[in-house]
Amino acid sequence: MIVIKTVSQMQQRAETLRKEGKVIGFVPTMGYLHEGHLSLIRIARKRADVVVVSIFVNPTQFGPGEDLDRYPRDFERDLHLAGDAGADIIFYPSADEMYARDYLTYVEVERITKRLCGISRPTHFRGVTTICTKLFNAVKPHFAVFGEKDFQQAVVIKKMVKDLNFDIEIITGPIIREKDGLAMSSRNTYLSPEERQDALSLYESLQIAEQKIREGERDPNVVKSAVIDHIKSKKTARIDYVSIVDPETLEDLDSIQDKALIALAVYIGNTRLIDNRVVEIRSSRING
Amino acid sequence: MIVIKTVSQMQQRAETLRKEGKVIGFVPTMGYLHEGHLSLIRIARKRADVVVVSIFVNPTQFGPGEDLDRYPRDFERDLHLAGDAGADIIFYPSADEMYARDYLTYVEVERITKRLCGISRPTHFRGVTTICTKLFNAVKPHFAVFGEKDFQQAVVIKKMVKDLNFDIEIITGPIIREKDGLAMSSRNTYLSPEERQDALSLYESLQIAEQKIREGERDPNVVKSAVIDHIKSKKTARIDYVSIVDPETLEDLDSIQDKALIALAVYIGNTRLIDNRVVEIRSSRING
Repeated sequence: MIVIKTVSQMQQRAETLRKEGKVIGFVPTMGYLHEGHLSLIRIARKRADVVVVSIFVNPTQFGPGEDLDRYPRDFERDLHLAGDAGADIIFYPSADEMYARDYLTYVEVERITKRLCGISRPTHFRGVTTICTKLFNAVKPHFAVFGEKDFQQAVVIKKMVKDLNFDIEIITGPIIREKDGLAMSSRNTYLSPEERQDALSLYESLQIAEQKIREGERDPNVVKSAVIDHIKSKKTARIDYVSIVDPETLEDLDSIQDKALIALAVYIGNTRLIDNRVVEIRSSRING
Repeated sequence: MIVIKTVSQMQQRAETLRKEGKVIGFVPTMGYLHEGHLSLIRIARKRADVVVVSIFVNPTQFGPGEDLDRYPRDFERDLHLAGDAGADIIFYPSADEMYARDYLTYVEVERITKRLCGISRPTHFRGVTTICTKLFNAVKPHFAVFGEKDFQQAVVIKKMVKDLNFDIEIITGPIIREKDGLAMSSRNTYLSPEERQDALSLYESLQIAEQKIREGERDPNVVKSAVIDHIKSKKTARIDYVSIVDPETLEDLDSIQDKALIALAVYIGNTRLIDNRVVEIRSSRING
């Protein structure tokens, strides 16, 4: 495994590999790797000749007052974990390498970035699409793998890739959870023991929502109320949003049919956690 | 010479060429080719194994009320001219191919796009940077050639390429002029005979400005006044802007030292024309 720290070296390596006919798979991360990231690296490993993992805590996707400064970092540990999961190249640029002092250029996807997480984090997805464009141009992958825990992010990246004609396939990997159901996140490390207990309410409320839908409930407001009630029963929890939307357009559903994304963001103490689930309803046959 | 109409076919061809070690040179145009465009194709021809010319009248760089609908088009003529100048591939996508109905993604360079032409055309450069990103991702060139008549555009594209880590060299070619000095432009075709005469005032006023600077004038306002006076003497002319700026940052100069860009946009009748000149002052040796 090798570590590359500059864009130009990364590009040279990517060009050489592509000329040799090698398939480059890419997993962008902000480091502090957990099983969620590692599962994405393993997905890339299965399909690529060369797996590139980037580790970069991207300042432009954090808003003012968010946790950029205290975001957890452990590069040595990340190196070992990524290597064991199958990474060949770690792309590890500095903030100065990625954003010069006179930096001016941003990539923005409209509309679908203004919903769900985009409401409380209005500049977040602009930072994500900008850094992904930069990383794609540096790594030159044939495909990239994103986690479904950040469901909206995956939708936004797919849209950007299609709209901007990036010749890159976007693959998603399922949410990886702790044994008790909490979705893995580098931010779980912020939680106190009490908060860790309350954080389970995200997963539990998604279970409740799915069960209600499976039992026949089709009114998103009724399902949302059940989710909200459950989360509100936890002392350290404060809801950012609970939404039931179309998994592609991210538009609110009037009625739950076919496929629904239940997405939520909840502050547990000061830590903002997200989770989601797509519920598919097998369409019942219509008589006649 | 071949004509390619879809992004995926263009990408496949580009991938094949790159694997063969071929250098791809790219000249993006809106068609209705004139000697200005052809000079850029010839520059590309000298350095590339394969020259790709795109012909696409990009709707997103036109503002409301601008000349998108009447922008001149003549594809057959363009084919012959581009071929004679050295093009190997014409990339000729439809508007639907480039912008699907649910299109949502834009690339924006801040600050330097808000000056000069960006004042009267506030969404123009967003359209330019977006389409260039799309074209770069479709054509996958090693270098691209832009004309210096659109000086601000070239500055903006260079900034975008650097900021977004595009692995593409940006080359510029000098302004090509009619015998009497009028900068070549597809929009010159709009001019009536009287307007064609008045249009010469852009070139003439740049001559006047350079002469004033060569004679020792260092006050941009004095130089600008001479330019404005000359253009205002023409009946069909109405000034959009006359600016004297740093050629890199596009910031207004307080005093003309080293290098100055004199840039102007003038409506001749209903036709908006632009022209510019960079004046370099050889620094005089300081005694002692």
